[in-house]
Amino acid sequence: MRGPAQSSPALAIMFANIRIVLVNTTLPANIGSAARAMKTMGLTDLRLVDPKIFPSAEATALASGSSDILANARVVATLEEAVADCSLVIGTSARSRTIPWPLMDARQAGEAVRIESETHPVAIVFGREDRGLTNEELQRCNYHVSIPTDEEYGVLNIAAAVQVLAYEVRMAHLLAAQQPSSAEQDASMPVQFIRWDEEIVPHGDMERFYTHFEQMLIETGFLAEDNPRQLLARARRLFGRVRLDRIEYNMWRGIFTRLQEVAAELKKAKG
Amino acid sequence: MRGPAQSSPALAIMFANIRIVLVNTTLPANIGSAARAMKTMGLTDLRLVDPKIFPSAEATALASGSSDILANARVVATLEEAVADCSLVIGTSARSRTIPWPLMDARQAGEAVRIESETHPVAIVFGREDRGLTNEELQRCNYHVSIPTDEEYGVLNIAAAVQVLAYEVRMAHLLAAQQPSSAEQDASMPVQFIRWDEEIVPHGDMERFYTHFEQMLIETGFLAEDNPRQLLARARRLFGRVRLDRIEYNMWRGIFTRLQEVAAELKKAKG
Repeated sequence: MRGPAQSSPALAIMFANIRIVLVNTTLPANIGSAARAMKTMGLTDLRLVDPKIFPSAEATALASGSSDILANARVVATLEEAVADCSLVIGTSARSRTIPWPLMDARQAGEAVRIESETHPVAIVFGREDRGLTNEELQRCNYHVSIPTDEEYGVLNIAAAVQVLAYEVRMAHLLAAQQPSSAEQDASMPVQFIRWDEEIVPHGDMERFYTHFEQMLIETGFLAEDNPRQLLARARRLFGRVRLDRIEYNMWRGIFTRLQEVAAELKKAKG
Repeated sequence: MRGPAQSSPALAIMFANIRIVLVNTTLPANIGSAARAMKTMGLTDLRLVDPKIFPSAEATALASGSSDILANARVVATLEEAVADCSLVIGTSARSRTIPWPLMDARQAGEAVRIESETHPVAIVFGREDRGLTNEELQRCNYHVSIPTDEEYGVLNIAAAVQVLAYEVRMAHLLAAQQPSSAEQDASMPVQFIRWDEEIVPHGDMERFYTHFEQMLIETGFLAEDNPRQLLARARRLFGRVRLDRIEYNMWRGIFTRLQEVAAELKKAKG
């Protein structure tokens, strides 16, 4: 189980890029147990957003051999501060929300963190004992991650959730290190799917979307009509990557229309 | 994450066939936390081999909502008694032994338990806090399972080890039960991690992006300043999903700035 990746300096860099962020933790025991869970999986960077009590003797006792993680933990005032330089932020979410967010399971999150941590700082964020992360905090995350739990009793302790996700991050690294050619794997990495509750806009509509976008940019003077299409190619790549659902599509079409009106009013006002 | 397997009677039978066996546990807290870890993953059958203290108020307190598992736990005198009718017994082992034994990682163990539990009782066995399972006990197991841990600090708490293995058992069941139809795939969002040649914009910059976007929408009259933030939440979700690279970021900031200029010109023209 202790693969060749263990001693690799590349792995150390990747793991140093991975942050565990605990938001508003109430019980010191949970901070200590979370530190221990991190350490067993090789993670070391702990950030505490406005913890109720820290440091504390109880946290240190439960951290067992991982008190160095507590000693080096950074205490910050807000979630934004904790993740400001992260390119990927994954928030743990126990229940489905009013606005569905791109949702990964723990395994997908481990793989995403593995790939991203090669080059950028990433964060996995854990909420309060009683009510998790607020909607506002969850909306600051690129993705949500959910650990599949029993329907009747899905109440994972924070340290248990840290343990499972840190384990999946470690497994992703070890499995990737065992591949003969990671370059080959990257090239053939399968696209993973998550469920979505809104209709995904079909390509035909997206063509109208790009036309509308271009027209708006011309009318507002951002784009000349004989402009090279580099910008529109980038827009296509971007929206092709994200795939809009129907509500998002309508939102953008509404924005474009309003911006065209502003441009028309300006033209009229100028005579 | 809560797939159709959840409500399947077949799954209930399989899970009823899975036993978690704790041998000679010293701390009641570990028994309680292990029960909770089991319950979150849908496992219910706990067997305690000669526990130091049981029952105890501390175990019940830490079991939280899973006290039914403690109430139904069977206390037996020996490991043999606990696993007598099991066709597959997997023993947890932290370190390699003098006599090499067939060794699985936690994921392989989850899959093995899934397959076997369709037809037979199976057991996963956890040893003492300080020294795990004895060689004699390990030799009564069909396989050993090892959770990959950091070389420096591989000391998983018993409840943490139960959590990881119960999670892998559950994942194996869910993955086997979930064969997403192509229709479901069509209505889902891609979570795609591909290598990118441009810098991915960190979260701190993205906060400036959202502020700029909102400001532009207000100045162009699309958004009222006291508007509910539903639209901005959707924008966060969208751009969080896609993650902008530096060139895209600059492109959008340029577009927003131009649109603000148009709005300012209109305001000026109107006097």
